[in-house]
Amino acid sequence: MINGKIGCAVIGYGGMGSWHARKIKNEMGEYAQLVGIYDINPERCAVAEENGIHAYASREELLADERIDLITIATPNDVHKEIAIAAMEAGKNVISEKPVAMNSAELEEMIACAERCGKLFTVHQNRRWDQDYLAVKKLMEENTLGKIHRIESRVQGSRGIPGDWRNRPEHGGGMVLDWGIHLLDQALMMTQPRKLVSVYAETTNVTNEACDDGFRTTLIFDDGLSFYVEVTTSNFIELPLWYVLGENGSASVDDWDFNGRIVMVSDWENRDAVPIVAGAGITKTMAPRTDDTIEKYPLEIVQADWGEYYKNVFAYLRGEESIIVTHAQQRRLMRLVETIFESAAKNEVIRFEEI
Amino acid sequence: MINGKIGCAVIGYGGMGSWHARKIKNEMGEYAQLVGIYDINPERCAVAEENGIHAYASREELLADERIDLITIATPNDVHKEIAIAAMEAGKNVISEKPVAMNSAELEEMIACAERCGKLFTVHQNRRWDQDYLAVKKLMEENTLGKIHRIESRVQGSRGIPGDWRNRPEHGGGMVLDWGIHLLDQALMMTQPRKLVSVYAETTNVTNEACDDGFRTTLIFDDGLSFYVEVTTSNFIELPLWYVLGENGSASVDDWDFNGRIVMVSDWENRDAVPIVAGAGITKTMAPRTDDTIEKYPLEIVQADWGEYYKNVFAYLRGEESIIVTHAQQRRLMRLVETIFESAAKNEVIRFEEI
Repeated sequence: MINGKIGCAVIGYGGMGSWHARKIKNEMGEYAQLVGIYDINPERCAVAEENGIHAYASREELLADERIDLITIATPNDVHKEIAIAAMEAGKNVISEKPVAMNSAELEEMIACAERCGKLFTVHQNRRWDQDYLAVKKLMEENTLGKIHRIESRVQGSRGIPGDWRNRPEHGGGMVLDWGIHLLDQALMMTQPRKLVSVYAETTNVTNEACDDGFRTTLIFDDGLSFYVEVTTSNFIELPLWYVLGENGSASVDDWDFNGRIVMVSDWENRDAVPIVAGAGITKTMAPRTDDTIEKYPLEIVQADWGEYYKNVFAYLRGEESIIVTHAQQRRLMRLVETIFESAAKNEVIRFEEI
Repeated sequence: MINGKIGCAVIGYGGMGSWHARKIKNEMGEYAQLVGIYDINPERCAVAEENGIHAYASREELLADERIDLITIATPNDVHKEIAIAAMEAGKNVISEKPVAMNSAELEEMIACAERCGKLFTVHQNRRWDQDYLAVKKLMEENTLGKIHRIESRVQGSRGIPGDWRNRPEHGGGMVLDWGIHLLDQALMMTQPRKLVSVYAETTNVTNEACDDGFRTTLIFDDGLSFYVEVTTSNFIELPLWYVLGENGSASVDDWDFNGRIVMVSDWENRDAVPIVAGAGITKTMAPRTDDTIEKYPLEIVQADWGEYYKNVFAYLRGEESIIVTHAQQRRLMRLVETIFESAAKNEVIRFEEI
């Protein structure tokens, strides 16, 4: 504790680490105080000092500072485990950046350490506060479209994958572990309490041979829901972020500016249409709906503040709330990631065993 | 022959049958003459007579007319085989509507009959003349986008499937055998000479329990090409008909009005971007391209006339051309259809054995 507030530190002061430090310093002052950071790269420590943030001389020095209660780890993925365990053994609570670990075996070591040390160990799944995700989740919860049979969730870029450690498998690079872990977490959260039955996945290597630069996966749940998740990085034309099909309508979220819509059928029985010419043929089945049998609505925006993530962690540490991102969720998510890699490697549908 | 031209007849005078009859009568006069039609439903025969087309009193009477050289079969799918065999045994050449048969076993009987009788037996795969398909095929052939790693081909409607025989499995209903057979034929044609390696498929039953009202399939070819084909009928928002990813650009055909575009990267090395805020996080990887590193082009329209289908059949019958839609293609397509049903039923990736 420091000045009656939760003392925070960040290990790894790169793009995400500096974002965490700034967030805690500038927006969490009511609950917490940023004590300092550490980065293995002295240049990044110098940048922190320029930003008015104390940089420790070593990780050991940071871990020895008794004012620090909570450490956010924002390093390359392959050292999350080692740092998290060292931090918890030093009596610190831990937030790890995602992916929490390289695989389930590492994750189990980290969870065992957390239980042994009696410390908080959670993961920065910030994209549970994405407005696009929350809008679709609300659609499901309110049954707006009727029974939903298909959800497609896509993030498509056109720059390949970053050229730093994120394209090296030994550091846990690749898009499954990067953006994938966000979209897959969203998929598992919003489909509760369904059980996941099977996974079919392809990984891509368009611009990068060493690790995947994208993936596509179809998750089949026990009520028949088909949930497609895609992260790709060689796409110069973008498909919608979300595409949702219910028995009585469809919805899309087209982009992060929240363009999108809901289109509901108002007259299902009115299926008969005047045939249209479509290519080298005619079709009644695929004739577009006329406006008298559908109704269009704008998407309802769900207000969300990612700061709720940190506020929950602080409230948990004060004993006031249960933690939002749990061990059980992380275990399931990591097993899904491994199942995706297995499916893609074997080109097989893999049955998912819920534990 | 009739008046020195190829004598044509149509069996089955429903939506497609009347379309065939009109096409032959109005546009093929240079090569052929429509002699008449037969439909099992007297009301349809009366409609033909009103349209100035002779309706035979029975199928037998039609088959016995020596002026008829070529019969187009446009009946429900379950009777294609019986009628085609009767027609070939009566000395007639045969065009069958798609799907040519209910399954491979039926198809083999029909091919054996054609070989025994020495008659033409081909299938109305008119959508090889779809302009959207031809535009994408040309993109591939001209290597415009560089090596293509992903193609998505979709037809999405919102009316469920038709309420006539097309929703009854005993008549060969369902979308795999309806629109599917078109898109799958296109997929197999445009990817030649690749070998198909594996098939993953889902069929849907959103509005119809008895037979599929849609499907999604991922075809993996031997050069790694991933080809997704979807036909669905409960979609009130439509995704593009075609979505193509090459190593140097992307293309889409958005609709049958031929909206669409090609977006090419002009500077692949320029991957670094200013991070953008995207939902509850920041991203460099997914930051949109700025206009200085991409170039946009309109799609090149390929002129096509579905009348070429009939012209090829007539030229074949005159001994001037080889037939475009061959037995070997039909065998491969029907085996793909069966593999899709098998994959969907088992929820497994099925290896495709090229013969």
